[in-house]
Parts: sequence; C-alpha cells; structure tokens
Amino acid sequence: MHPYELTLAEAAAAVAARRLSPVELTESVLQRIGAVDERLGAYVTVTGEAARAAAARAEREIAAGRYRGPLHGIPFALKDLIDVAGMPTTASSRVRADHRARADSAVARRLSTAGAVLLGKTHTHEFGYGLTTPQTRNAWDHGRVAGGSSGGSAVAVAAGAATFALGTDTGGSIRVPGALNGLVGLKPTYDLVSRDGVTALSWSLDHVGPLTRTVRDAALVLSALAGPDGHDPAGPRTAPTGYPLPGDGGDLTGLRVGVPVDYYFDRVAPEVEAAVRGALARLADLGADLVDVEIPMTRYVQATQWGLMVPEAAAYHERTLRTVPQLYAPDVRVLLEAGALVSAGDYLRAQRSRTLMRREWLRLFDRIDVLAAPTVPMTAAPSDQETVQWPDGSTETVSDAYVRLCAPANLTGLPSLTLPVGRDDSGLPIGMQVIGRPLDEVTVLRTGHAYESTEAAGCCSKVSP
Amino acid sequence: MHPYELTLAEAAAAVAARRLSPVELTESVLQRIGAVDERLGAYVTVTGEAARAAAARAEREIAAGRYRGPLHGIPFALKDLIDVAGMPTTASSRVRADHRARADSAVARRLSTAGAVLLGKTHTHEFGYGLTTPQTRNAWDHGRVAGGSSGGSAVAVAAGAATFALGTDTGGSIRVPGALNGLVGLKPTYDLVSRDGVTALSWSLDHVGPLTRTVRDAALVLSALAGPDGHDPAGPRTAPTGYPLPGDGGDLTGLRVGVPVDYYFDRVAPEVEAAVRGALARLADLGADLVDVEIPMTRYVQATQWGLMVPEAAAYHERTLRTVPQLYAPDVRVLLEAGALVSAGDYLRAQRSRTLMRREWLRLFDRIDVLAAPTVPMTAAPSDQETVQWPDGSTETVSDAYVRLCAPANLTGLPSLTLPVGRDDSGLPIGMQVIGRPLDEVTVLRTGHAYESTEAAGCCSKVSP
Repeated sequence: MHPYELTLAEAAAAVAARRLSPVELTESVLQRIGAVDERLGAYVTVTGEAARAAAARAEREIAAGRYRGPLHGIPFALKDLIDVAGMPTTASSRVRADHRARADSAVARRLSTAGAVLLGKTHTHEFGYGLTTPQTRNAWDHGRVAGGSSGGSAVAVAAGAATFALGTDTGGSIRVPGALNGLVGLKPTYDLVSRDGVTALSWSLDHVGPLTRTVRDAALVLSALAGPDGHDPAGPRTAPTGYPLPGDGGDLTGLRVGVPVDYYFDRVAPEVEAAVRGALARLADLGADLVDVEIPMTRYVQATQWGLMVPEAAAYHERTLRTVPQLYAPDVRVLLEAGALVSAGDYLRAQRSRTLMRREWLRLFDRIDVLAAPTVPMTAAPSDQETVQWPDGSTETVSDAYVRLCAPANLTGLPSLTLPVGRDDSGLPIGMQVIGRPLDEVTVLRTGHAYESTEAAGCCSKVSP
Repeated sequence: MHPYELTLAEAAAAVAARRLSPVELTESVLQRIGAVDERLGAYVTVTGEAARAAAARAEREIAAGRYRGPLHGIPFALKDLIDVAGMPTTASSRVRADHRARADSAVARRLSTAGAVLLGKTHTHEFGYGLTTPQTRNAWDHGRVAGGSSGGSAVAVAAGAATFALGTDTGGSIRVPGALNGLVGLKPTYDLVSRDGVTALSWSLDHVGPLTRTVRDAALVLSALAGPDGHDPAGPRTAPTGYPLPGDGGDLTGLRVGVPVDYYFDRVAPEVEAAVRGALARLADLGADLVDVEIPMTRYVQATQWGLMVPEAAAYHERTLRTVPQLYAPDVRVLLEAGALVSAGDYLRAQRSRTLMRREWLRLFDRIDVLAAPTVPMTAAPSDQETVQWPDGSTETVSDAYVRLCAPANLTGLPSLTLPVGRDDSGLPIGMQVIGRPLDEVTVLRTGHAYESTEAAGCCSKVSP
C-alpha cells in the first residue's frame, strides 16, 4: 500500500508512531498528483517545494518530540477561494489574474498551526458559482462532472492526490462533489468555521468545511478548524473542544433518525433511493429509531436560495462586473448580471422566508436527533448533459437537481454531512446526507461514523491506482 | 406631593413599605391623565377600569405578603406598536382600524408578570416612521414637537401621566422624545429585549426600551424586560440577572469616557453643546477620564440608516401599501413607496456598510468604556418648523437633525441611554446620550446614575402641576 492511499486517521497514527515520516507521505502524494492530475485537472497550483520543506519541518519537530496532533505532517489541498499569504487566490477565474493574497485565511492559519502540509490550490467552479467545475474531471469516470463548486478538492482527495482538502459550500458545494466522488464532506453549522480570508459567494449562505475519505477524518479536520478567530465580522461561534468518535463505530440505540416522506421521492433516481434506504436499514440495525417526518416549506427552497444568493453574489462582484465583465465565463456572468436586477423587496422576502424556514426546521428537531436524506438525487452526470428528466415527467437542469436537496442546510445553517452509501449500476458513488441541530456536529459525525464502521460501508474507495 | 409625581423607585419603595397602595397611586395617575391629556394628546387609549382592577389585585397580593418586586403595582403606558391581547394595536394609523392583538407581546407579558399596572396605549408617529408624533404635544411647550416616534410615551411620563412607559427605537425613537421632554430613555443592546409582538418598522434596527424620569428607574424596568422569550425569531440574548446601581450615585474613578472630536461640533446648537460639556465636567469631577475620540464613518451614517430602514419598512407594509395606500398619512406613505424602488444591491451595500461601521465602533471601545455625546443637536422645535439652519451655513430637515446623532447606536446595536443635562434659554430640556459596549448596560446605567446623583442634575422635572 502506498502512503497516499492512507486515510488521514491511518496516516496520522503512522506518523505519530514514527512508522511513517511526513516527508515520505508528502512525497508519495506529490508523486500521485504527478501521475493523475494531468487527466483529472484537480489542481490550479501545486506547491511541491514548499510542501517538501513543510514536511521536512514537521519531520524534524516530531523527531524532536514536538508532535502537534493528528494533522501534523499531513498533506492537504485548499480550494482556490481560500487565501494563503503570498499566493494568488485565482477563484479559477481570469478576473483574478493578478491577484496575490496578503495574509493567510483563518482556516489556512489554523491548519498551518496544526502542522499540516499544504500541497497546493484546487479548482473551483468560477468564484464558487456553479455545480460542475468544468476544469476538473470526476475521479470515477473522466467523462462525467466532478461536481462543484469544490470539484478540485473532492477529486484530489478521491484520487489520492491529497490526504484531505477544504472546500466551501453555499448551496451544496462541498457535499455535491463529495457525493459524486464517493467522499465524506461536511458543511458545518453556519459561523462555526471562520470565513475570514475566503472569497465570498453569498456571505449569508457560505460555509467552509472538509472533504475527506472517512467520517473520522472529517472529525479530525473539523477539530482543527472550528471556533472564533477574532477577524470574521459575522464572528464564528465557539466550538466544542473537539469531535470525539468511539473507536468501534458505536451503538446508535435511542438515536431518532428522521426520514423525509415528502422531500424527494418523485425526483430521485431509483438507485439513489434504494442505496439510501439500505443505509437507513443499517442505522436501524445499529439501534436507531427511524421516524417519518414532513420537511417544511420544500417548495420555497429554490426561490429562497436564489433570492439570497443571486443579489449577494452580484453585490460582491459589483466593481469587476462593471469594469471587466468579459473576463467572467458566460454562465457566471449571466448570473451576476441578473443579480443586479433584483429588488430589495425580493431580497427581503427571501430573508423572511429563510427566517420562517429556519424556525420550522428547528421545530422538526423536537422529534428527531438527525435527518437522513440523499445528498443529491442522482450520481455524476455526463459532462455534456444539461437537464435531467424525472419519472414524474418533470425536467430540471443538472445544477438545479444537485442543489435541490443540499440547499436547505445552507438556508437553515444546520450542519450536514455527506457520506458514501453505495454505487449505481455504472459504478458511480451515491451519497447520503445527515443533517443535525445547530452546533451538534458531534451527533452528525457519530451517526455517519457508526454507518461507516459497518460492513456495508467501504463501497467507494477510489484511491488505489 | 401627589403620588403621580413619584419616580418609579420612590413609588416602589413606598408600595413595598405599604406606605402607598397601588390603588391610590394608579388613581392619582389616572386623575392626572384626566387633567392633562386632552391638551397633551399622549394617549390613544386609556384603560382606566382594567388599570383599577389590576391595581386592586396588586394591592391584595402585597397585603397577603406576595410582593413581586419593584414594578408591582406601578402604573405604566405602552407605545401603541406593542401588542396587548384583546386590544387594538393602532400604530396611530387608520390602516389598523380593525386591528385586535391576539396575544400579549413578550414585553407586555413580562411587565404583567412583574405585577405592573397597564394604564393604556400611547401615540406613536404613524407606524413608528417619523420623529415628531404630530398627535402629541411637547410636555414643556405645547407649541413644540413631542419628538418621535415614541412621543406619546415620553410626554405621558414627563407630564406625570404614567410612572414609566415603553417605547421603540429604530433611529432614535426612544431617545429623541426622551431628550426633548427631559426624560431618561434607554435603547438597549440589539436583541437584548424581545421584539415579539411589537410592530416592526425595520427589524434589523428596531429596539424596545423604557422611558423613565431617572436612570435608576430605567434600570428597574430593564431588569424586568431583558432576556430571551423563546418566540422572537432573531432570538433575544441572555441578559445579566439585573442592573444594580449603587445607592449613593457612585464614584467613576478610572471610567474612560470618550468625547467625540468630529461628531457634531459644527451642527449642534451652542446651548446643547455647552450643557453636554458641563455634564462631562461633572463626570470628570466624579473621577472619569475624558478621552478624545474620532467617531468612525460619520458621513455614511445617514445613507446606511436609510438604506436599511426604507426597504425593510416597505417590505413590512407591502400588502397594505398595495391595497389601502390612501389610509397612510402622506409623509409615511411617500417613504413606504420609495422603499419599493430600492435595489437589492443598494440594500446589501447598506448591510455591508453597517458591518464595517459596527467593527470600527467596537474598536473604539478598546480605548474607552462609554462614549458621551448630545442625544439630539437641538431642543424641541416648534411644531410647524420643517428645517434647521446651522452655524456652518448648512441646512437639514428637523427629522434628519433628530436622527443624526442617535442612528449610530441603532446601526451598531450598542446600548445608548439619554438623560437630561440642562435646559436652554427657552427652558427646554437638553439630553446627553451615553453609549456603551454590547450588553454592557450596567456601565452605561452606572455612568448616567452617577451624573443624576450630583447636584447638577434635577434640572428637568415637569411632573409638578
């Protein structure tokens, strides 16, 4: 087994026990990047020399007995919306051609403090504003979409080209590529992880979080990321001191898992639905109680999401949209131009709808501890597919389909974890999301980890050559 | 001395010691209302019978040894934007002709639980959207404006027609009429007091708070109002368990009082400036250190306040503005109609400006503990005056002048207390505001109380016949 195939927890255990050196691990991942990234297109920039130097530094510190914790010496990638001092934050856009970040983002600082080794920056759908990431190919099928907007981060982790990565999520941008590439992805509670130094798409919906190969790995990364930084104007919340998971997967006796009765049935691919039902049965085997619930206000999700995101994104890009509109890709430019036409009344209606939606969703959690649902209603679409037709006869765009089930967690700010629960007939991975109460990442992660510790899991590793 | 002349603290002490019965106190205030309110126009509705019944109930409870605390048996008035179950909330508007509140607002519930005696509902500038309250006359000069929008509440308390009252404050609506009528008025930290059941003007700027004759009285009312209610979607914050003040006024040694160097000098009436300077000298006598500070972003205050308030108010009134526009007064209607024309981009610019302003203001409090400034740049204007000309040659509307110095505390959410610090040559009261850190009402009140305990205070009682 090559070091690049190790999960974060496995690599951390080997590094801590000095069975594996950070230099050896980093070298293995860099070689893997060299072998696969030309085809995958996950990376914008690979900073090999800096990574080797950071790994050597970690090795020296650990040899001297100054072990910092589970991320020490672990190579990772950052979505290229996240600032690292001295590097451009390209946002995968020509608009950012001359950019250079003056300071580290809060999350880059935290990972650096934890001793993790930056490999480089990964592709995003331009400025995070799309669900496909056209520069990047799906790790499982190069003819299919990577998902987006954190497509580069997801594909890098899925292909063994990073041990973990960070993404951002405004309407599913961590969870969609996570699900489409057989990964674990966590959108934490709104404001739990600082957005300081992260390019905004829609600041009231934006979240930063990890993409990993296991739930345990996501918990390790979240422990390093969570909590206040003193910079973010909206002020990240105080976090628990960590996200501990039981060693053996754990018993879910008494956990009430909500199962939506009205959320997706007509417009979810049958294989996706079957895989999620199978995963729910595994949760029940572990002692969980499945509780039917009605999801509130589903028909307002799309209007509310767009009503908030479109004008906020336009406000962020106002100046460059006026001066260099030709530098944006056409799909992003039309969305930004549309945003300038929204009235304050429409925006405020969306804000008020979100307030009501949040209240109704919180009420749901009087009866349940977590909610489980498909992350996306279908697996990775062929790159040239634009729309999808559902069994009920309706049609929607691929992007709308990918956002539909993810957006409620952005609107409500609730934590949502996607994890792989099977594969379809084409061998493409299927994701299930677990949504929890505000700041109750512990329960969300515990649920996902219990599932991944069963025999049913392990369906979706793509890191082997 | 008539019971209606007593401050809340004096009345409470007399009631607790059973030297004064709630019935006697309430009867005295009701008689005072009868004697003065026809001229003043402070009340929309006086609920004499219900008040007498509540006072009798309080008297029986206290006689039976079930004393609830300092508000027990104390008569008060509510601005008529605040719901009381079964009563109309008229908002002083024809739009609300058929209104009847189904439930108590959170603050009405709290005051009822504290045993306070509701006298009735007081006039507001229509829907809180103005600074004059045309139905009501200034308690000191009937030819001058009451100030607004909580004009009725302020005039009632100033004239002895209520022992205390509640108002709401979106851009100065508690503090402006407080200052113009020689009262103490407190706009607490945003979200400290619930807005549940209170008609919104601009929900991101709205606050509920007390109008009283002394700072000590304001502290007593705030203790009853503050804290979560489980209803307000924005969720009031947890409050300290009370707002204790020293019995003797207190020493201010070491308190750093910020004095703006760039905030108001050119456009504040000389008598107002002199009175505030005099009050600052008293604070220095008490041991406070006066620290010159530059107020950040003053030239963005008005645009930011209007950019938030105008579209939020229009959103709230959207339906009735479409169906019954003719029922609004012309001044309010034009503002609401203007709000429908604001773009989401402009609203978002105002939101972002507020975020920056809040950050800059918080930074100010690294160097100071409170900030002191005039509440309003001039005393009560004649009712027919529309504009004011300043020594620097500039002109502004009376309303803009009254909002100008108050709005920053709405935009930043910081607590702001107005208290009387003198009178001008016409005998009209002058107010000074003390602004503090978020949730640091204790220090704000302590500062005001120290001033009011000096000989310099006591300038502004209007309750005697």
